[in-house]
Amino acid sequence: MATLCKPSVSVPEHVITMEETLELARSRHHDHPQLPLALRLIENTGVRTRRIVQPIEETLKHPGFEDRNKIYEAEAKARVPAVVRQALDHAEILPGDIDVILYVSCTGFMMPSMTAWLINEMGFPSTTRQIPIAQLGCAAGGAAVNRAHDFCTAYPEANALIVACEFCSLCYQPTDLGVGSLLSNGLFGDGIAAAVVRGQGGTGMRLERNSSYLIPRTEDWISYDVRATGFHFLLDKRVPGTMEPLAPALHDLARAHAWNASELDFYIIHAGGPRILDDLTKYLRVEPHAFRFSRATLTEYGNIASAVVLDALRRLFDEGGVEEGARGMLAGFGPGITAEMSVGTWQTGGGSRARDAAARAVRTPA
Amino acid sequence: MATLCKPSVSVPEHVITMEETLELARSRHHDHPQLPLALRLIENTGVRTRRIVQPIEETLKHPGFEDRNKIYEAEAKARVPAVVRQALDHAEILPGDIDVILYVSCTGFMMPSMTAWLINEMGFPSTTRQIPIAQLGCAAGGAAVNRAHDFCTAYPEANALIVACEFCSLCYQPTDLGVGSLLSNGLFGDGIAAAVVRGQGGTGMRLERNSSYLIPRTEDWISYDVRATGFHFLLDKRVPGTMEPLAPALHDLARAHAWNASELDFYIIHAGGPRILDDLTKYLRVEPHAFRFSRATLTEYGNIASAVVLDALRRLFDEGGVEEGARGMLAGFGPGITAEMSVGTWQTGGGSRARDAAARAVRTPA
Repeated sequence: MATLCKPSVSVPEHVITMEETLELARSRHHDHPQLPLALRLIENTGVRTRRIVQPIEETLKHPGFEDRNKIYEAEAKARVPAVVRQALDHAEILPGDIDVILYVSCTGFMMPSMTAWLINEMGFPSTTRQIPIAQLGCAAGGAAVNRAHDFCTAYPEANALIVACEFCSLCYQPTDLGVGSLLSNGLFGDGIAAAVVRGQGGTGMRLERNSSYLIPRTEDWISYDVRATGFHFLLDKRVPGTMEPLAPALHDLARAHAWNASELDFYIIHAGGPRILDDLTKYLRVEPHAFRFSRATLTEYGNIASAVVLDALRRLFDEGGVEEGARGMLAGFGPGITAEMSVGTWQTGGGSRARDAAARAVRTPA
Repeated sequence: MATLCKPSVSVPEHVITMEETLELARSRHHDHPQLPLALRLIENTGVRTRRIVQPIEETLKHPGFEDRNKIYEAEAKARVPAVVRQALDHAEILPGDIDVILYVSCTGFMMPSMTAWLINEMGFPSTTRQIPIAQLGCAAGGAAVNRAHDFCTAYPEANALIVACEFCSLCYQPTDLGVGSLLSNGLFGDGIAAAVVRGQGGTGMRLERNSSYLIPRTEDWISYDVRATGFHFLLDKRVPGTMEPLAPALHDLARAHAWNASELDFYIIHAGGPRILDDLTKYLRVEPHAFRFSRATLTEYGNIASAVVLDALRRLFDEGGVEEGARGMLAGFGPGITAEMSVGTWQTGGGSRARDAAARAVRTPA
């Protein structure tokens, strides 16, 4: 059984507060006809602080797609290894024990992906599978958990490393002036998260069943317009209302597992925005307190895209975890509109696993 | 057991011959100090014709990254569905039988990925898993086969759809004048391939074991420079020599399966270029005839990136397939430098599978 162990999370050192965000919106868009609406939407996010990879003065400049992407690469290489090391430590796993790396990120583009660099730089085996995913946006955190679960289901002795690296501030587009863009400028933050899914042992969420769901005909509700200036994030005003069509998929998943989605012990939900969380408590019929980990992520870091679910899970661990056998659900949402969901049971114990080379030789499929 | 069924392949209607390519190189780069070397390298590829999505006059223009990417999207949406339909027919599978779509492409970028559009447009279930991969380049064809194999190993009743859509001509960069770029301008072609991996039944290569290998410290040998003008393909002159360090990984995979890589019945190998194929016959100790499918792909279509391995396999099917129980190997190579390899046995028969909804309900994991 695959167990999603304690994530490691790192946010950058540059802080921007809600007040600063509002003041920037006022000063930069003072003549925008919908400024009052944009300010109200930003205030409603409840995002008190965000952390970004560059000082705000640099962030507001657009040095061009090429330079932006170079900053992405430099910052990822500078910041990801420490997060990965801590995730391995949390899981009591060595680099040599990892069989597959899922690297998810929609805010920079590299080929080869960071997976190749990480394998070289951090001593992962040359035989490590690479699954880089750039096109699932915020849903990619849930997708990475699910694909890691699938991999460990196929190879029960394998271990997967998940890395979600999102520098949303590097997708800031000064010329995008729609209300959706102004809101996004106040909603998204930067963050890096990593976690190990252990095929055997480990403490955390034992992944037992997963599913995906695409709301029909919503492809253009969240999308990138790809231009010479980079990725332009487009957010349709219908997105905050997507929990109504998505909630049945969460109920279906729980039901397939003979559980009731309204009566679980923990919920790790993508904090896309305040209405996403408010609505989902309603449609899942749970108390707002059940989503406290997601709410805290949103308040302190903003929406850190694919890293949200791992940060929310980290907060559950920091609260002391839950009881052995507690039942929970994890769900990421993103462009498509896609939901990537899983259910599982809390497992404690299962200490460090055999790390000798002989054991490894028979463990991996090739 | 997962079976990789007969691929469907489509190449565009616009043809460019070796002679036309050489003439273009001569006329556009007449004052290039290394023109004779570039011409010799292009001639050595043995690529007689390539097929491209636009007439050559359009291809040689660069309308900007935004327009290029819009052409990618329009052409992919116009051309992919027919290829997918044929792949489903080859496998005797209906859209409703598909559990996961792996869409691999490094020559255009969309978010949401084409996976979402295909699900909506072609009637795949809303619960279909999406695995879009843009960052594994030419190795992504082999990676898609391997990840489909893993998925069907985890869920033995599942079916995976693989789509490789590569319009390399849309990455032509007129300002790139290195010898590697001039060679690439004469090497790469456009093509779309799709194939189904059936968890049960089907005729084709039964996937039995797969592996990945990254040659240490070769990340910058094949890469994209990401700029305002799009993806700039960088090809190091050491790349043609990579079969020496990669061949041991192929031998290791065969050995792990108690086979000898030199004595298999069929080989489906990425046709990166002529030296890749020449060297690998040497290091695997096989006759050049064994690589005839890859050689034919290269000669007729050029290097069509992640679609090569599927086109080579299609040619094996068109030749009449091989005998039941014949042993073979499939390998894709690409940036990293990464190899994605698999071994398996030819399986015939296994007719159409139960297609009723009730059977499906218990088949999928959620």
